[in-house]
Amino acid sequence: MTHARIAINGYGNLGRGVEQALSLAPDLELVGVFTRREGVMTASGPAFPAAELTDPQLRARWAGKIDVVINCGGSKSDLDTQTPLVASGFNVVDSFDTHARIPAHFEQVDDAARTAGTLALISAGWDPGLFSLQRLLAEAVLPAGHSETFWGPGLSQGHSDAVRRVPGVKNAVQYTVPKEDVRAAALAGETEGQLSAGDKHRRIVYVALENGADPEAVRQAIVTMPNYFAEYETEVHVISDEEFAAEHTGMAHGGDVIRHGTTSPGTSHALHFNLALDSNPEFTGSVLVACARAVARMHARGERGAVTLFDVPPALLHPASAAQLRADLL
Amino acid sequence: MTHARIAINGYGNLGRGVEQALSLAPDLELVGVFTRREGVMTASGPAFPAAELTDPQLRARWAGKIDVVINCGGSKSDLDTQTPLVASGFNVVDSFDTHARIPAHFEQVDDAARTAGTLALISAGWDPGLFSLQRLLAEAVLPAGHSETFWGPGLSQGHSDAVRRVPGVKNAVQYTVPKEDVRAAALAGETEGQLSAGDKHRRIVYVALENGADPEAVRQAIVTMPNYFAEYETEVHVISDEEFAAEHTGMAHGGDVIRHGTTSPGTSHALHFNLALDSNPEFTGSVLVACARAVARMHARGERGAVTLFDVPPALLHPASAAQLRADLL
Repeated sequence: MTHARIAINGYGNLGRGVEQALSLAPDLELVGVFTRREGVMTASGPAFPAAELTDPQLRARWAGKIDVVINCGGSKSDLDTQTPLVASGFNVVDSFDTHARIPAHFEQVDDAARTAGTLALISAGWDPGLFSLQRLLAEAVLPAGHSETFWGPGLSQGHSDAVRRVPGVKNAVQYTVPKEDVRAAALAGETEGQLSAGDKHRRIVYVALENGADPEAVRQAIVTMPNYFAEYETEVHVISDEEFAAEHTGMAHGGDVIRHGTTSPGTSHALHFNLALDSNPEFTGSVLVACARAVARMHARGERGAVTLFDVPPALLHPASAAQLRADLL
Repeated sequence: MTHARIAINGYGNLGRGVEQALSLAPDLELVGVFTRREGVMTASGPAFPAAELTDPQLRARWAGKIDVVINCGGSKSDLDTQTPLVASGFNVVDSFDTHARIPAHFEQVDDAARTAGTLALISAGWDPGLFSLQRLLAEAVLPAGHSETFWGPGLSQGHSDAVRRVPGVKNAVQYTVPKEDVRAAALAGETEGQLSAGDKHRRIVYVALENGADPEAVRQAIVTMPNYFAEYETEVHVISDEEFAAEHTGMAHGGDVIRHGTTSPGTSHALHFNLALDSNPEFTGSVLVACARAVARMHARGERGAVTLFDVPPALLHPASAAQLRADLL
């Protein structure tokens, strides 16, 4: 069995999800939690300042004591700088999910990791992550076909943040909900893989307002926001602070990857992968932990630079030996 | 893009499925079809005698002209001898699916391949194959949980063969059908991963009888057959030759892999993978072709011996480059 020493960098919802997942991994040891907030107590004990990992002067203390760092910051402002910095000293896993910037992030992390002789696995989680893997497997096996991905029902963090920046909004959540008729058509193989996210999803927003804010002005500002809402069927519900606190703190999510493909005239096949998650950060954390195990093993085999889940032999994600996996799961 | 030269060994339903799948692979070239039957014409031209691949004296003709052989024989009597023989001269992929004998088959093929410096991927298809991969991924990500696999509705070749050996039976097919109430309970997370195949499936048999055969004796011989039917709820329908020919020549199949797992008290997650296949041999052939691509690439990287899909970095199954896959599918 692997024995690998793991550190968590960032102690928000995702960091706590990773800590929880590590408690279920007999072969992985949590050696430290790093955070920018001072005086944090984790479930495992005191946290260390994040700078100890990212400041080259400070991190001497941890050199040789961590096998893999799991970066738990956000894609918006943290990971694009943190992952290259951490990769220049440690093997690292992140969940970078800003799709358009993945190629640039990959290059930057690859440079840092190759220079340092470390291994960095980026963009892990469920999408990007397990969903990406399903898209790849389905397309590799059925090259003549079309795929659809649906997200939700679930809370979108990025869209919730965007609503919170609207003047007059005190608190907000945004749920992404598949249009059930479109999803049913995709499951039946009646779509062509060309649908936009707006064709497939509705956005439902719940806002609690500042005193004196004009609900109609807030609603207009939300539904016309380009890139986030203008292209979507969007509902805005103004609710009380109490209702907000009582009903809208869950972090459930999920979705579907669907592919239909043809192998000869009139002969077609359907693959469907569905996730239904009670907690997005706990599930994402569980994927990151399995990836950290694989990174420890791949680094020990001599792999260096940046990789994604596409490059990981699946057996390395599981604690059992290859022979055991063949006997039990093949 | 890879360019690899592929040979098909065995030209039954699966061999034809592989041939069809190769026609959709721009990077793979079919260089020959080998068969034990004489005078066969394939869609691609004349076939060669199977002995040219397996007889060390005869195969000199093909040395250096084939990158990967796809073995398309059956697990019952062909693959356990054919795959080690072929591996002693060529890289090879097979669909060996007798679960209990996979570890022994792996060892035997591994010895042959290591000695010869070839790479052999065994037990590919959908189960074992894509379903195995789903079981592994789900268990790696959700270690505290339980999985259920359902097969069907679909035709089971092994069980159909067993019925055909019953005295008085002229022709037979056997359909494996999930018990819908049990499947619904598994999807709802209400099972514990301990169900036997007999708990989850019914077997439905259609037989056409020889003249003068006693239908009741045939029925009894089928439903009491140990390992195949005795442990199952089994229905036997006696039908005419005409009805048999008209209704029972399809090869549809499919099934489900389901896992429910918990990451913290009260927080659980569900993964569900479903396949619905119009043609079992065409889909299995498509998986084997993607595996042949990966084997050509892994052999070029220096890998030797036996492997399974558990050992294959998923990107190698797809014709596109790693950078393209990151941009398009991650």
